Amino acid sequence: MSRRRWQGRGGAVRAVALLALLVSATTTPITPIYDSALDLNDTHHLYWRVDYPSEEISFEVHTRGSSKSPWLALGFSDRGDLVSADLCVLWTDWHGRVHFQNAVVGASERLQITEDQDCLKFRHKVRGEVIKFTFTRKFDTCHPHHYVIQGGTTHVVWSGGAGPLYRLGGVLARGEEWGVIRLQLLKPPLPSPQHHDQDCKVLQVRSKKVRVPAEETTYWCTVVKLPDSFATKHHVLQFGPVIERGNEDVVHHMELFHCEYEPGVTVPLYQGPCHSPDRPREIDVCKRVLAAWAMGAEAFVYPEEAGLPIGGPDFNPYVMLEVHYNNPSLYEGRVDSSGLALHYTNQLRRYDAGIMELGLEYTDKMAIPPGLDTFTLSGYCVPECTALGLPEGGIYVFGSQLHTHLTGVRAWTKHIRAGRELPEMNRDNHYSTHFQEIRRLPRPTHVLPGDGLIMTCEFSTLDRENVTVGGFAISDEMCVNYIHYYPRVDLEVCKSSVDTASLQNYLQFMKRWSLQATSSEAGWRENYHAIRWTPLRAAMLADMYANSPLSMQCNKSSGARFPGYWENIPIPRILHPLPPYQRKCDQTKDLPRETEDAGGDSFLE
Amino acid sequence: MSRRRWQGRGGAVRAVALLALLVSATTTPITPIYDSALDLNDTHHLYWRVDYPSEEISFEVHTRGSSKSPWLALGFSDRGDLVSADLCVLWTDWHGRVHFQNAVVGASERLQITEDQDCLKFRHKVRGEVIKFTFTRKFDTCHPHHYVIQGGTTHVVWSGGAGPLYRLGGVLARGEEWGVIRLQLLKPPLPSPQHHDQDCKVLQVRSKKVRVPAEETTYWCTVVKLPDSFATKHHVLQFGPVIERGNEDVVHHMELFHCEYEPGVTVPLYQGPCHSPDRPREIDVCKRVLAAWAMGAEAFVYPEEAGLPIGGPDFNPYVMLEVHYNNPSLYEGRVDSSGLALHYTNQLRRYDAGIMELGLEYTDKMAIPPGLDTFTLSGYCVPECTALGLPEGGIYVFGSQLHTHLTGVRAWTKHIRAGRELPEMNRDNHYSTHFQEIRRLPRPTHVLPGDGLIMTCEFSTLDRENVTVGGFAISDEMCVNYIHYYPRVDLEVCKSSVDTASLQNYLQFMKRWSLQATSSEAGWRENYHAIRWTPLRAAMLADMYANSPLSMQCNKSSGARFPGYWENIPIPRILHPLPPYQRKCDQTKDLPRETEDAGGDSFLE
Repeated sequence: MSRRRWQGRGGAVRAVALLALLVSATTTPITPIYDSALDLNDTHHLYWRVDYPSEEISFEVHTRGSSKSPWLALGFSDRGDLVSADLCVLWTDWHGRVHFQNAVVGASERLQITEDQDCLKFRHKVRGEVIKFTFTRKFDTCHPHHYVIQGGTTHVVWSGGAGPLYRLGGVLARGEEWGVIRLQLLKPPLPSPQHHDQDCKVLQVRSKKVRVPAEETTYWCTVVKLPDSFATKHHVLQFGPVIERGNEDVVHHMELFHCEYEPGVTVPLYQGPCHSPDRPREIDVCKRVLAAWAMGAEAFVYPEEAGLPIGGPDFNPYVMLEVHYNNPSLYEGRVDSSGLALHYTNQLRRYDAGIMELGLEYTDKMAIPPGLDTFTLSGYCVPECTALGLPEGGIYVFGSQLHTHLTGVRAWTKHIRAGRELPEMNRDNHYSTHFQEIRRLPRPTHVLPGDGLIMTCEFSTLDRENVTVGGFAISDEMCVNYIHYYPRVDLEVCKSSVDTASLQNYLQFMKRWSLQATSSEAGWRENYHAIRWTPLRAAMLADMYANSPLSMQCNKSSGARFPGYWENIPIPRILHPLPPYQRKCDQTKDLPRETEDAGGDSFLE
Repeated sequence: MSRRRWQGRGGAVRAVALLALLVSATTTPITPIYDSALDLNDTHHLYWRVDYPSEEISFEVHTRGSSKSPWLALGFSDRGDLVSADLCVLWTDWHGRVHFQNAVVGASERLQITEDQDCLKFRHKVRGEVIKFTFTRKFDTCHPHHYVIQGGTTHVVWSGGAGPLYRLGGVLARGEEWGVIRLQLLKPPLPSPQHHDQDCKVLQVRSKKVRVPAEETTYWCTVVKLPDSFATKHHVLQFGPVIERGNEDVVHHMELFHCEYEPGVTVPLYQGPCHSPDRPREIDVCKRVLAAWAMGAEAFVYPEEAGLPIGGPDFNPYVMLEVHYNNPSLYEGRVDSSGLALHYTNQLRRYDAGIMELGLEYTDKMAIPPGLDTFTLSGYCVPECTALGLPEGGIYVFGSQLHTHLTGVRAWTKHIRAGRELPEMNRDNHYSTHFQEIRRLPRPTHVLPGDGLIMTCEFSTLDRENVTVGGFAISDEMCVNYIHYYPRVDLEVCKSSVDTASLQNYLQFMKRWSLQATSSEAGWRENYHAIRWTPLRAAMLADMYANSPLSMQCNKSSGARFPGYWENIPIPRILHPLPPYQRKCDQTKDLPRETEDAGGDSFLE
């Protein structure tokens, strides 16, 4: 959990104090300070501020130690493991002298002092039980083996224990306490939104005391009629989760759908499993996405020029909340009333905002073989579809929520125009399914008709015994980018799946040439499971995906396809890629072996 | 067993009578008549004569039937099966009327009268118990589904039973008696050799009462000192097998090696297993091939201009006979004294003849995956080797013995000069390991220095569960052409194997990408056995063989390599292939539905 200070939930006094403190340590203009507890008890708390011009982050840690001279390590690792983490470590020697060193964790799980010391500008102060310390860290230290802080998710790892220590090198990295939290450290430097005006109201759409089934996957649907005030059009300015306390572990994601008007259809106020045979046919009209949230995300705030339209004379006043309960421990007796809170106003903004799905269709035509370090899948929003679905002036994408299930580790969306690659829309090189934020983009992406959008996901299946197939269960996979944009258009789904004939060819080839028990009688999922996966068969599958034409979902919010033949579409190719990313690492650096507190200057209040 | 009449072993009177008979049926000049018993008891006997100008064969069958009106079918099939055989059938109806019809055997194993009747010029005569009949058959009838008689091996199948019959169609092809013999029907029309002159003597080199071990594979070596008369040089004009009666089934092939002189080495008269630890090192000099025979072959007769040199002042008077006993039934107590008979003379011919090995090295670097209809391997005699090993005027190849073990089904040798394909040296599209003749070529092949020779074998492993590896055991495989040529040169072995690094790459690939238990620690054979073979893995192996460089054996008779670096040699490629073979089938034909004996004319004596 991270938050901007102005969104503060408690801890405001300390945060305000801190703000002053960090300002005193730098001379740059005021930029937002973010903070997050490192542990459930908030024994350790992290604050940070990003200095984009100098490409460094200032960190401050407050820790309530039980030990008089504890050590505390805080740093970064690719996926949250302590092994190979790059840590900044505060520790005290037997003379009571406080040290601050940069160390990495080797395969032996012990701390190794690094030759290059990149935890800089260390200061610390003790206030009773609380130790406070600050340091800075460059995004990219340019030193080999040191973590590079990038946009998207950062796995912040920490560990600590009782001291004093003789020396830091050789200490077991896993102390008496340790943990990992996922943060978007490099939040985009957007102007702070104005406080919502007085007309702003909150609508909560929640499930009603759902008895969460003792099953791994449950999609629970709750249809709600909007209050009469929505007879006039409003704009949603912000939406966020309302999670029932104690159910944070089972509420995986939520979506709010609008039930569009269809002549003669009265939407029943259904409450029950979404995929039940008892689900009334009438609620099939509830499929236009209004809002979405997934585990790990904060509330989403719209840019000033746009709001999500809701209500009005032609607006069918029904919405459906779909909650995905992920209950792999098969807990019994959980009762849940979680949902979404919408901040809305009748002071309409300039543009209506919309949500669109990019990436791969939800289908078991896609699969990820087991035992692989990485396997890449891409879903395409092809020029043929944007040419039909987008207005002449294009759309501006201001938010993006990358979405996979458990095996996704990296995801990005490329943007092409006439074969030329434009700057990436979004990227997360340390994606985690447990931290799916709807993120505001640093700059909106302007997508024109005829542009192509390529959503790519990397999956890691080293710990899977069996193939992972596309689908809705949490053990299945997805590769989607839910983009938030304005002005709203009728195109809601622009996703692809592999051409059916190509996939059939592959399965036929597996049968004929590799003697696998694939069959034209069986379904895709069954066929994928019939293959004994080897790296070669996986590589051939990847090759088939990468070189086969597409079947497109180019769909309106009604679920209907845009007119056209959407099979056998060529993959949009990047003919002129962007130049490869250049690190700013030409200069050599001399850094002190160890950073010590200069002492003297009191910079903490 | 087939034989030219002039080599006749018994049956001469009948054969002479026949000769006259067949002559009376044609107007072409006298050409040789060949004959062979169809069964062990010689109840049925086949004579044939080839008319090359009109591309047809005249057949005559003599059969001593126990039935008064028997039916007898004689014809051809690809590999000796009755199913799909193309048969000419004599039969008698209930009115005593004799019929002669062309029929094929369908999958139901029953005779089907073919629309096109290609068994022509039928005549028959009954002489007491003996029925004699003649007919002709075009090499290529140009009719679909009819067998094309080609050079090399023909599987002649026959079947018969008691009559009379109502009709032929529907009769089970497998009669009370049936069988298959392998014949070279299209023997080349070479001039008959002159009878060897009076000076011609016979030397028999035979094993001495070998107790054949009850093991599948035994190579037995017998060193013999030549008589003193070989102090002067002689020419061998003919050599052939002397098989101990009753051991025809276990004597698989024999080779006679010359023990070349080496200073200080006295060759011991060793008799024992060739690969025994007791085998004296001194007989390692016995490796220059003088003569060879394999199961199914006749005696080999040299052309008039050449003889195989043997004896003389510089000729070490020792030879070693190597007999390969193939005893898969593990018979005990077999005693054998088989060997080779050499007809030799001191009236030297113009040229010394030699023997050279082309094809694949005897090594387990080659392998044939199991369960395949066909798998092709090629061994190369590269231009780099012939450039060193052949004289400026080249050599003339007049004989060729194609050699594989049990899974070989087809073999041929291509000849290239500067990338241009010349006429094939030899081809057998119906090769059988059970019929390995040394065959005289219709025209000698003139091979120049810098020419390339590509020996290719097709193997069929449908009935194998495990991979077949290159090696000496009958269950292993080989792909060799033993060529007989003059003038004799020092080059004795011009064979290749696949480049070692490429094979290691393949095995490494199988391990890394297909999770096979191959290992750089294990030998080739073990590695091939570690692979679970699929058609794809087999195709990748074939691709690796077809596209990897070569390791060359370009060896002198001493066993030493010609000077040079013989690894990583490029595969000689055919840049300008011969035009594809054109059948002479443009004209349409009208043939009678059934050929009946015209009767009347008495043409049999």
